[in-house]
Amino acid sequence: MAKMIHSMIRVLEEGRSVEFYKKAFGLEVAERLDFETFTLIYLSNSETGFELELTVNKGREEAYDLGDGYGHLAFSVEDVDAEHRRLTDAGLSPRKLVDFAPAGDVIARFFFIQDPDGYEIEVLQRGGRYL
Amino acid sequence: MAKMIHSMIRVLEEGRSVEFYKKAFGLEVAERLDFETFTLIYLSNSETGFELELTVNKGREEAYDLGDGYGHLAFSVEDVDAEHRRLTDAGLSPRKLVDFAPAGDVIARFFFIQDPDGYEIEVLQRGGRYL
Repeated sequence: MAKMIHSMIRVLEEGRSVEFYKKAFGLEVAERLDFETFTLIYLSNSETGFELELTVNKGREEAYDLGDGYGHLAFSVEDVDAEHRRLTDAGLSPRKLVDFAPAGDVIARFFFIQDPDGYEIEVLQRGGRYL
Repeated sequence: MAKMIHSMIRVLEEGRSVEFYKKAFGLEVAERLDFETFTLIYLSNSETGFELELTVNKGREEAYDLGDGYGHLAFSVEDVDAEHRRLTDAGLSPRKLVDFAPAGDVIARFFFIQDPDGYEIEVLQRGGRYL
């Protein structure tokens, strides 16, 4: 059966992206494939086999147009309050913690944070749907 | 540790997207959360805990701007040639199979296919990096 294995985003600067994803989510470079016109960097950690693939197109200087279709990559964490504090202290400017309770009950507790290219990332308290 | 748990994309029509992801990749609706102005649909199959989250914003009719930053969601399959034939026969118009061999050796055998909103999806022969 088909298995979801990675999500790919294009980023401008390899170094700052690799540093961000390591600091924010503990992702390490699992593989780096360097070609003439572009570089692919696969990031992962031990929590899941799913990977984040970064594409760096050499010579590209203009910021990517992120559009309004793609939403975000989501991470679950054991203690979203502690992670929010840690990322704030690390200077990564997470947005405010939100209790999502559209009908009264809290469905999700989360915050968003942007990566260096502006991609949105959702960080959710682990539990329920978000394991 | 932070764990990647889903990727979210905004789509215009719930029905056609759910049908596409079921037919193309065997994804089923794991949960559907309906709110006043939007609906969230979590899609998954038994291969991985990672989910695809669809957001349907009610009343939205204009196609989403997909930009040029977000690349694709990737799936691995046991037999990429058979999957290519199956998706072709199902009328889903996968693009042509590619052997990616920038330096001579084949690193990946894959094809791309678009979902109903135009998001790119990569389907890779399982193996190597793509398990």
